[in-house]
Amino acid sequence: MPTRFKNILASIAIVGVCPLAVFADSGSARATSAIETFNQEFAAATRRMDNAAIMALWDDKGISLLPSTPPIVGKKAIAKLIDDVTTAHPNARMKQFEMACFDIEVAGDWASEWCEEHQVVEFGDGTPPFEGRGKMLLVLHRNAAGKWLLTREMWNQATDVK
Amino acid sequence: MPTRFKNILASIAIVGVCPLAVFADSGSARATSAIETFNQEFAAATRRMDNAAIMALWDDKGISLLPSTPPIVGKKAIAKLIDDVTTAHPNARMKQFEMACFDIEVAGDWASEWCEEHQVVEFGDGTPPFEGRGKMLLVLHRNAAGKWLLTREMWNQATDVK
Repeated sequence: MPTRFKNILASIAIVGVCPLAVFADSGSARATSAIETFNQEFAAATRRMDNAAIMALWDDKGISLLPSTPPIVGKKAIAKLIDDVTTAHPNARMKQFEMACFDIEVAGDWASEWCEEHQVVEFGDGTPPFEGRGKMLLVLHRNAAGKWLLTREMWNQATDVK
Repeated sequence: MPTRFKNILASIAIVGVCPLAVFADSGSARATSAIETFNQEFAAATRRMDNAAIMALWDDKGISLLPSTPPIVGKKAIAKLIDDVTTAHPNARMKQFEMACFDIEVAGDWASEWCEEHQVVEFGDGTPPFEGRGKMLLVLHRNAAGKWLLTREMWNQATDVK
């Protein structure tokens, strides 16, 4: 067998098996790091109550599943919900917001993680501040431009406020 | 160039580019169908209140995120929770249970979907039946044997009971 022919066969053995497995680890580490960046941006936008910045992190097909609320389907409906909340409380300020996320799992352009959050909101109208703790399950999708966006979010209350 | 050499090059062009994209559609359809089967088995096991059958559908690393409850981490802890519930209500019977799931998304060995459920439980002790409606966000993982298992589950209440 000519040498160049053997080389071609070797190429098939290496490339033809599909290089995804070989590069999966480093690709996965990069994706995990990108999702950690997403989490920081999401927490920062929430802390500032910056609705435009929050919505820039949502996928167009996003769905939000909140307690005692019908499924909120699509970026436009989610944007309306958070705008309604800020309109109803024009002087509200997020005094404190922390979010810790765990177990980031990435598969291709999809990822999931779960988080715990704690928030303290002051209303600026003399009513006592609201303090809440919750858990979240998040599913993210990487768009054609390579940006990770929130596409499925569910929230429920934590055990209690400590 | 010898013909067999050209054939090898043609094979690289077809196989070497990685066949995943070519077969993604049919693979994805198969996976979606397997997850629909998972959903039917999960609903049937819940309807029978068959805890062993429910737990056979959970991943060892599963996590359940229920309202007003700390994260329940691991199959053993989840099994204990559902066994505690059935022990506390030994005569309970699931009179009705329906689950409808939407937007199954599959990426490699990971998948997600969201569901709505409705349940009516009779306790068999003279107390009135419980009727509840909720939403779920589920993340599934396909194990080495090719079986889809529930690995992340979150639940919260629907709008109201109708």
